[in-house]
Amino acid sequence: MHTIALPRQTIKFSYDIREGENLLNILVDQQIFIESPCGGRGSCGKCKIKHLGGDLTPLSADEKERLTPKEIADGIRLACLSYPTGDLEIDIVDQEENHQVLTGGYVPEYEPNPAIRKETIEIIKPTLEDQTPYELLLATALGVNQLPWDVLRQITMGEGTYTGVFNQDQLIGIEKGDTRERLYGVAVDIGTTTVVAALIDLRTGAEIDSEAAINAQKNYGQDVLTRITYVLEHGKEGRNQLQTAIVDSLNEMLNTMCERQQISPSLIYEIAIAANCTMMHMVLGVDPLSIGKAPYAPIFVGAKDVKARDVGLTALSSFGRVYCLPAVSSYIGADIVAGAYVAGLHNRKDKVLFIDIGTNGEIVLSDGEKLVSCSCAAGPALEGMNISCGMRAADGAIEEVRFDNEQGFALKVIGNIAPLGLCGSGIMAAIRELLKHEFITARGNIVKSEELEAGDPRLPYLDLDGKKRRIRIGEGPHKILITQGDVRQVQLAKSAILSGFVALVKAMDLSFSDLDEVIVAGQFGAHLSIESLVGTDILPQAVRDKITYIGNSSKTGAYLALMSLETRREMIKLARDFSYLELSVTKGYERLFAECSQFKV
Amino acid sequence: MHTIALPRQTIKFSYDIREGENLLNILVDQQIFIESPCGGRGSCGKCKIKHLGGDLTPLSADEKERLTPKEIADGIRLACLSYPTGDLEIDIVDQEENHQVLTGGYVPEYEPNPAIRKETIEIIKPTLEDQTPYELLLATALGVNQLPWDVLRQITMGEGTYTGVFNQDQLIGIEKGDTRERLYGVAVDIGTTTVVAALIDLRTGAEIDSEAAINAQKNYGQDVLTRITYVLEHGKEGRNQLQTAIVDSLNEMLNTMCERQQISPSLIYEIAIAANCTMMHMVLGVDPLSIGKAPYAPIFVGAKDVKARDVGLTALSSFGRVYCLPAVSSYIGADIVAGAYVAGLHNRKDKVLFIDIGTNGEIVLSDGEKLVSCSCAAGPALEGMNISCGMRAADGAIEEVRFDNEQGFALKVIGNIAPLGLCGSGIMAAIRELLKHEFITARGNIVKSEELEAGDPRLPYLDLDGKKRRIRIGEGPHKILITQGDVRQVQLAKSAILSGFVALVKAMDLSFSDLDEVIVAGQFGAHLSIESLVGTDILPQAVRDKITYIGNSSKTGAYLALMSLETRREMIKLARDFSYLELSVTKGYERLFAECSQFKV
Repeated sequence: MHTIALPRQTIKFSYDIREGENLLNILVDQQIFIESPCGGRGSCGKCKIKHLGGDLTPLSADEKERLTPKEIADGIRLACLSYPTGDLEIDIVDQEENHQVLTGGYVPEYEPNPAIRKETIEIIKPTLEDQTPYELLLATALGVNQLPWDVLRQITMGEGTYTGVFNQDQLIGIEKGDTRERLYGVAVDIGTTTVVAALIDLRTGAEIDSEAAINAQKNYGQDVLTRITYVLEHGKEGRNQLQTAIVDSLNEMLNTMCERQQISPSLIYEIAIAANCTMMHMVLGVDPLSIGKAPYAPIFVGAKDVKARDVGLTALSSFGRVYCLPAVSSYIGADIVAGAYVAGLHNRKDKVLFIDIGTNGEIVLSDGEKLVSCSCAAGPALEGMNISCGMRAADGAIEEVRFDNEQGFALKVIGNIAPLGLCGSGIMAAIRELLKHEFITARGNIVKSEELEAGDPRLPYLDLDGKKRRIRIGEGPHKILITQGDVRQVQLAKSAILSGFVALVKAMDLSFSDLDEVIVAGQFGAHLSIESLVGTDILPQAVRDKITYIGNSSKTGAYLALMSLETRREMIKLARDFSYLELSVTKGYERLFAECSQFKV
Repeated sequence: MHTIALPRQTIKFSYDIREGENLLNILVDQQIFIESPCGGRGSCGKCKIKHLGGDLTPLSADEKERLTPKEIADGIRLACLSYPTGDLEIDIVDQEENHQVLTGGYVPEYEPNPAIRKETIEIIKPTLEDQTPYELLLATALGVNQLPWDVLRQITMGEGTYTGVFNQDQLIGIEKGDTRERLYGVAVDIGTTTVVAALIDLRTGAEIDSEAAINAQKNYGQDVLTRITYVLEHGKEGRNQLQTAIVDSLNEMLNTMCERQQISPSLIYEIAIAANCTMMHMVLGVDPLSIGKAPYAPIFVGAKDVKARDVGLTALSSFGRVYCLPAVSSYIGADIVAGAYVAGLHNRKDKVLFIDIGTNGEIVLSDGEKLVSCSCAAGPALEGMNISCGMRAADGAIEEVRFDNEQGFALKVIGNIAPLGLCGSGIMAAIRELLKHEFITARGNIVKSEELEAGDPRLPYLDLDGKKRRIRIGEGPHKILITQGDVRQVQLAKSAILSGFVALVKAMDLSFSDLDEVIVAGQFGAHLSIESLVGTDILPQAVRDKITYIGNSSKTGAYLALMSLETRREMIKLARDFSYLELSVTKGYERLFAECSQFKV
C-alpha cells in the first residue's frame, strides 16, 4: 500500500500498485479528473501532471514525443503513460494553466459571465425641498424603473453607499455598503441517491468547498418510481414531504459549507441545480405523478429561475435564486443535458455516444448533426441494490474481484477489512470474472457442478441452497454469494442498457465501428472500469477502446450555468435539439431486449 | 320623524323635516350620492330622482325649465329643488342610466377593462409518441412562453378544459374547467381609523357587498405618527405587528363578505387598495420610519402590483394580486390621488380645489393646467378626539347642535338617546353655534359671564371649573361641556386647514373668487355640513356656494383601478403631475397660520 499526494489540492490517498494500471486510471478512480480527450490512450498529450517527487516509471519514448524540452525539464509527465511504483507526489498541470477545476469532473472552457452580479451606488439624502422617495433614488442610480416589492422591504432610509444585486437585468436585492467582494453561488447535482454541492466564488469561478450527502428522500423510496408512488398515495402532503426532504438536505449542505468556510449564507445568491426530471419536479414542489404513468409526459422540462425562499431554500440570501437547468423529457433530465453539454455534444462534429449509468441509464448519441436520446430502466442492480449480498460503497464493500485457477477469488475490500458484501463496482467485477472463467454461461445460467470434471478449479466455489445454485466468492462474517437470482438482476440491467445503446445506434443508421467516442458519465459510472463495462457486456466489446470518463458532468453543468449565461443559453438550445426515442414503442425492441440479455463476451 | 325609501337600492332611513333642507342634502347626509356637478344650486339639472310616491313639494318653475315633458310625466324631479314634506319613496335616475354605483360615492364613467381576466382552453392528453410536457401544452394554448413557478405548482396531469387567469399579460393561475363566470375583486380604502371594502363582480362592475371595519392598527396608536413611533421603538417586529394588524383586518372583511354572499374566497383575484402613504407602506410591510422624520421622504410612492400571499393576504385566490394605487409624497397618498382622479382633476379645465378633511387635511388645487397639493396636520380634534366630551359617531353622540335665545341648545343625538358626548360633526356644529351666538370671540376666547348683562340668554350656559371657563351645551348622564381647551383644539385644526387652503390659493396666484368648485371628499367630510364648514371658518365664507361633496373617493378610485387599466394609467400620470407644497418651508407660513387661527365668521 502506497500513497499519492497532490499538495496543492490538499489531497492524499492510498493505492495498490497494480500491473498495467497507469497514473491516470488511479487518479480517475479517486475522482480526480484530468482532461484526457483521447481516453488515456497516449495520443492527445493533455493529461499532464508535474512530478514533484517519489516513485514513477521513467519518462517513456511516447511521452518524449508529446512534451516540450521545457516541460520535460520541469518534470511534466503524461498521467496515462506513467506508472507509479511507490509513494508519489504530483500536481495537475492543466488545472493551473487553462481550467477552473471542479472536484469530480472535467470542466470545459467558458467565458465567465454569471447571472448574478453586483453594482455599487451612492445615495444622497433627500431634503425638505426635494422629498424624492428612496425607491426612486435607488432605482435611478441602479438604472431600473422601480424596485420589486421584496427589494422595497429591504430598504430603510439613509444616505451613503449601497450595492444592488442583479439577476441578469432584474434587481433582486439591495445591501448597505460596498459588498461587491462577497458573491457566492452553489452548483448542485441532485441524484436520486446522492446529492453533491459545490460552493463557488462567482467572481473567480473557484470552488471554495464541496459537500456530498445522501438524498433524504430515500426514506420515501430508493428509486424515483417508488417516490412518485408515495406522492400518489399521500397527495399534496406527500408532495410537500418529498420537497421538504430534499430542500432540507440542501439547506444543511449549504450551512455546513458556510460554517466550514466562515462565509455567511446571506452571501450566497444563487443555487444552480442539475437533476433528473423527477428530482427537479420534487425540489420545486411540482406534481411528479405524470412522470410515473404512461404516456410519461412531465409537467415541465424547461429551465426555471425561481426565488429560493419560495421553494423553502433558506440557507442563502433572502433574495437568492434557484436556477434549474433544462431537461428534455421525463427520463432525459437536466443532468443529462448538462452532461451532454459538458461532453461538448453541442459543437462536436464526430460521432459520440454519451452514457450515464445508474438506476436509470440515459444514452445520448450525436452523429455530428442530430442528437437522439433514450432512457433505459436498468434498475438498481448495477448499484448493488436488489442483490442478495449487495451493499453501498462503504467499509467492507468488495469493489474489485479477480479469479485465478490457482489462487481462487481475490477481493479488494473498501477499508481493507473482512468483506461484508458487494457494492456496485464489486458486483460488476464479480460477474465479469464469473463470465470470464465460465462460472456463468452466455445465457446467464450458473454451471452445474455435476457437469464439471473432478478437479475443475471452479468446483470448490459452487454451492447449492436447496435447488438454487450459488457461487461463493468470499467469506467474511458470513459467506459472500452470487445467486442465480443476482445474475438475473444484472442480466436485466445490462440488457436494458445494451439494448438502448444498440437501438439508438440503429436508429441513427450507424454501427459500433462508426462511433468515435463513448463517454461514460456520472459518479457511479466513474467507478466502473472499462474492463467491467465490456467484460459484463453492458457496453459492447467493439467500443472498448473508445470509452472515456467525464466524471460528475451533471454538477459541472450546474457549475457552468452558475458561471456563464452563455452556457445557459446553449444548454437550453441543446435541450431543444434533443430528440427522444421512447424504447417501449420502438419496433422490434422487445426482441432486441431479449437478444441483449445474452452475455456475448 | 318621517322616512324616505329607495326600494331598488333597498334603502330606507328616517329624517326630520327641516326648513330649507332639500332632498339632495338629505340624501347626501345619508351618504347616498347623486351626480350634482353644480353643487345643488339648481343649475346643472343632473340630480334627477323619480318620485315613486309620498310627500314632496310640488314641481317648481325651475324644475319645469330643466326637465323634458316626458320626464315630468314620468315623475322625474330634481333633488336639489324638491323638499320632502313627509314619508317619501323615490328612485335615483342617473344611477340607472349611466353609472355603476358604489355605495358611498360618486363614480365617474369608465371603460371596463379589468387587469384580471380569464381565458378558457382545451388540452388534449399527451401520447407515448408525443410526450409534450403539460407546461408547454398549456402555455401554447394560452399564448405565453412559459408558466411561472407558482402556476406550475398548481398543475396536475389531465386532459380537458382549463381556465387561465391573467393579470394583464401575465398568466398568474390555471383552474380546471371553465370558470370564466366567477371573477371577483375587492376595492379597499384603508384609512388610519376606518377600513372600507367593496366586493366587486369584475365581469359587470357591480358591487356585490361592502364592509367597513375599524383599522386594527388603532391598538398601536390613533394617528400615523404614533404608529410610526411604535415601529421606531419596536423595530422589524413592530413593523410586522402593524402589517399583520391591517392584513388580518382585510382578511376578515373579505371572509365576512364571501360568507355572506356564499362566494368562495378563491374566486377573488385582486384587491385594489387606496390609502395614505403610511398605511400603504404598512400594508406592504415596507419601512415607514422615513415618513415620520424630516425630510419626510417615503420609501416609495409608485403604484405596486404584488402577490397577495406575499404580504399575508390569504382570503382570496392563492395566486391573487394586490394593486396599490400611486401616491405623490409622504403626505399626499394614493387616497388623494384616487380622490383627485374621481373628482376629474386630470381633465377639468376650470379651477377646482379638492379637500379631504380628516386627521390630516389634504388639499389639491387645479387651475386647469397645474396641480398643486399640500398637507395640513389638523390633528384629530375635528373627528372628536382630544376633545373633553369627544366620542366617536356612535349611539349617544351629538351630531348636530342649534342654539336659540328662547329655547337654548337643541341637540340631535345618534340613536335618539340621552347625549353621551360629541362626535366630529357635533363638535363642529357646536363651535359654529357658539361663534354665531358670540359665546366665543373671534380670537377663540369664551366670553366672561361677569362681562354680560343680567338676563343675557347665554348666561345660564356659562360655567366655571376653578378658573377655567366652559360652556354647558347639554345634559345626559353627565354634563356635556365645551371647554376653552376644546376651542383651542378646534382652532388649531381649523387654522392648519385654512392656512393650507390659503397658502395653496396664493401659491397659484389665485383668489377665492377665482375658484369654480370646492370638492369635499372623504367619509368624514361627508358628515360636515356646508353650514358647519364655513360657520367655523374651516373653509372661507367666500367659497360657501361652491362647496360640493364627493363621498369616499378613495374607495371609488380603488374601484376604478380594479375595473379599468386605463384609469390606472391615468392615475399614475395624474400622481406624477402633482407638485407638492411643503408648508413648513413656505415663506410666511407661520404668520399665515397665526392669522388663520382667528374665527372670521
